[in-house]
Amino acid sequence: MVEHPFPDPRGPRMLLDDFHTLSGFGATPGGGVDRQAATVPDGQQRAWLHGWLSDHGFDVRYDAVGNQFGLATLVPGAPYVLTGSHLDSQPLGGRYDGAYGVLASAHAAHRVVEHWAATGESPRYNLAVVNWFNEEGSRFKPSMMGSAVFTGKLPLDTALATTDRAGTPVEGALREIGTIGDYPGPDVAAYAEIHIEQGRELENSGATIGIVDSTWAARKYRIVVHGEQSHTGSTAMADRHDALYGAALVIVALRELAAQHGLHTSVSELDVEPNSPVVVAREVRLHADLRAPDEAALDAAAKQLTGTIAGLGERASVTIDQVLTHSWGVAPFPPAGVELARRAADTLGLPYRTMPTLAGHDSVHLKDIAPAIMLFVPSVEGISHNEREFTQDADVSAGADLLTEVLTRLTAGELQS
Amino acid sequence: MVEHPFPDPRGPRMLLDDFHTLSGFGATPGGGVDRQAATVPDGQQRAWLHGWLSDHGFDVRYDAVGNQFGLATLVPGAPYVLTGSHLDSQPLGGRYDGAYGVLASAHAAHRVVEHWAATGESPRYNLAVVNWFNEEGSRFKPSMMGSAVFTGKLPLDTALATTDRAGTPVEGALREIGTIGDYPGPDVAAYAEIHIEQGRELENSGATIGIVDSTWAARKYRIVVHGEQSHTGSTAMADRHDALYGAALVIVALRELAAQHGLHTSVSELDVEPNSPVVVAREVRLHADLRAPDEAALDAAAKQLTGTIAGLGERASVTIDQVLTHSWGVAPFPPAGVELARRAADTLGLPYRTMPTLAGHDSVHLKDIAPAIMLFVPSVEGISHNEREFTQDADVSAGADLLTEVLTRLTAGELQS
Repeated sequence: MVEHPFPDPRGPRMLLDDFHTLSGFGATPGGGVDRQAATVPDGQQRAWLHGWLSDHGFDVRYDAVGNQFGLATLVPGAPYVLTGSHLDSQPLGGRYDGAYGVLASAHAAHRVVEHWAATGESPRYNLAVVNWFNEEGSRFKPSMMGSAVFTGKLPLDTALATTDRAGTPVEGALREIGTIGDYPGPDVAAYAEIHIEQGRELENSGATIGIVDSTWAARKYRIVVHGEQSHTGSTAMADRHDALYGAALVIVALRELAAQHGLHTSVSELDVEPNSPVVVAREVRLHADLRAPDEAALDAAAKQLTGTIAGLGERASVTIDQVLTHSWGVAPFPPAGVELARRAADTLGLPYRTMPTLAGHDSVHLKDIAPAIMLFVPSVEGISHNEREFTQDADVSAGADLLTEVLTRLTAGELQS
Repeated sequence: MVEHPFPDPRGPRMLLDDFHTLSGFGATPGGGVDRQAATVPDGQQRAWLHGWLSDHGFDVRYDAVGNQFGLATLVPGAPYVLTGSHLDSQPLGGRYDGAYGVLASAHAAHRVVEHWAATGESPRYNLAVVNWFNEEGSRFKPSMMGSAVFTGKLPLDTALATTDRAGTPVEGALREIGTIGDYPGPDVAAYAEIHIEQGRELENSGATIGIVDSTWAARKYRIVVHGEQSHTGSTAMADRHDALYGAALVIVALRELAAQHGLHTSVSELDVEPNSPVVVAREVRLHADLRAPDEAALDAAAKQLTGTIAGLGERASVTIDQVLTHSWGVAPFPPAGVELARRAADTLGLPYRTMPTLAGHDSVHLKDIAPAIMLFVPSVEGISHNEREFTQDADVSAGADLLTEVLTRLTAGELQS
């Protein structure tokens, strides 16, 4: 057990003041932020973080997919404990999603560096902060792009060539904001991330901290409904092949599937061709997302969906193609990391509960290459991906304190001992 | 009864050859055309028509909303018999919709001018060809914009200030293609338009010609579904306010309404905000179109829709605003015009039937300021607003022959005698 590096000598206001500054980049009138990956506001906040890290003694580097690292080399030649999240947001997103985790990581890492300097002891590992590129996936798909490339799950060339709706590729957009480099990334001994919960389980239970022990399973589908253009006024109803009507039936069926199987399902992205008020749609493309705590339930629902879709195609006189684009099973976070986090929370007297993550996070990729710890703080009313996203100041501070404790233990090598 | 100006001295191929040339503007790989109002291909075809009209002795003028007129002044000071349709198309539209009517009008008008010259007689009225601006309404709403301004149903300033999705106003787009002027428009004695049917009633009945005696009634609504952004993965289903789910319920309900009340209904334009794969939609805007041959049925359906929508909003935990943006009742075309067209078809031995128009046409506006005659030729399989739109060459020629006969009678003053 290492000595506890509290209290923060600069007080909890430092983190809150910096968070206030950070929330100004891409600020929206509704109190949120709009700073999608590699847009101008994303470039501005990355430049600000670069300055913050440099001012606090971190060596800032960029890898080839725009992941931003701040290195604190305490033990030359040793691997790094990595900690971070993402600064990019959804369109009209909240201030906390991702950004809280990056800033809490920077503050906690700085406190841990000062702690080791003050004790005169040498830790086992170095420490690095990371701001992953494009976690949100709203501008460039897939989400969690930067951490997927870093962990070898997505080829770099594929990521760099990915284009947004306007046809701009990732590489061009990253060069535009100037945060791309050739740093290969640190050798990772362990990873720790803190994030807002984006649900209301912590709020309902009264706990301050969530310690993530597993992920829900997910299946994501690209569904394309093929109809035929015709006149909305003069074409007989029986002669119509209306792709938007077919898509509407799919959306309603997915919602019914959620109720039947205890899933979370959604269709939130949908494009209509030609999208004219007097032309029956010839094609509708949509993205369907199914998640469940239980793989067997998800399998049953996915199987039922495929059968249902065939019948809906017939009902709307359209053809419906369904392609699985992404899936993952129920996956555990390493039990030793969960135990370390429990001990850290107990040390600080913070009430916690272990829980799954329903949302994807960069830690979900990182856990497959290194021991990873994922922590949550409460989201008021569970509101997220929304300008009204909010976490109480006390929880913001408590999370950063816990992350400091966790990083102290990780750099000391507690997972390995 | 005037002398019959047949056969076309240049033969039916002239019209078909010109139609082939016209179909090259904005031609698509799928055999259709894409020349929305005041786009580059629309400018090209307008320039071509300008040349054709000038070459055939018409005086070409543009009014302030870009309606293109070709004047043949046979009796200085007399009003004009006006004939035409529109050259603009839907995105990936067919070659015949509107364009056939403009070209048939130009050829028929030219034949009638030659006829009067050959007889040495003087007609009662002058003759003018018109290409109405923006009949389709896919780029700039509403549809039938040019004829609406011409007939005083839409203020000129409102039309000129209307913007497309990219924010370009009508006036700027018209100046870009150079077809805008200050001609006030001719004094209209009568109007005649020919168009493809866009349904399959003529094909099913074996008739070559449709003589339009009335319009179906219509109601058009702007429907906005207000939800709330949230995370598609982590937000509990019960906490979602999913605007796209609400919209899907409306689309399905509208289709059921069609079956119950014998209507034509459609939703073919729909926009999602923020349209991200992991953000529950906060707002969906859609356009609903209801048409019926019977106003009482349409009233009942519209009343039922309003009640249904309230319930669907509750079911999806969203609010749904419904605004009537456009409506018209069942309206007759002047019986004297229908009778004149019958006599003309009988003279040529063309099998015809009287029928309503389900689609809107510029003639629907024109009939309210002058006696208007609306003619149809068959659409193969009723396919329209589609690249596969087709009308047989024999029907193309027969329609132009009938329009020539109708224009001869109209310029002679047969409606007035």
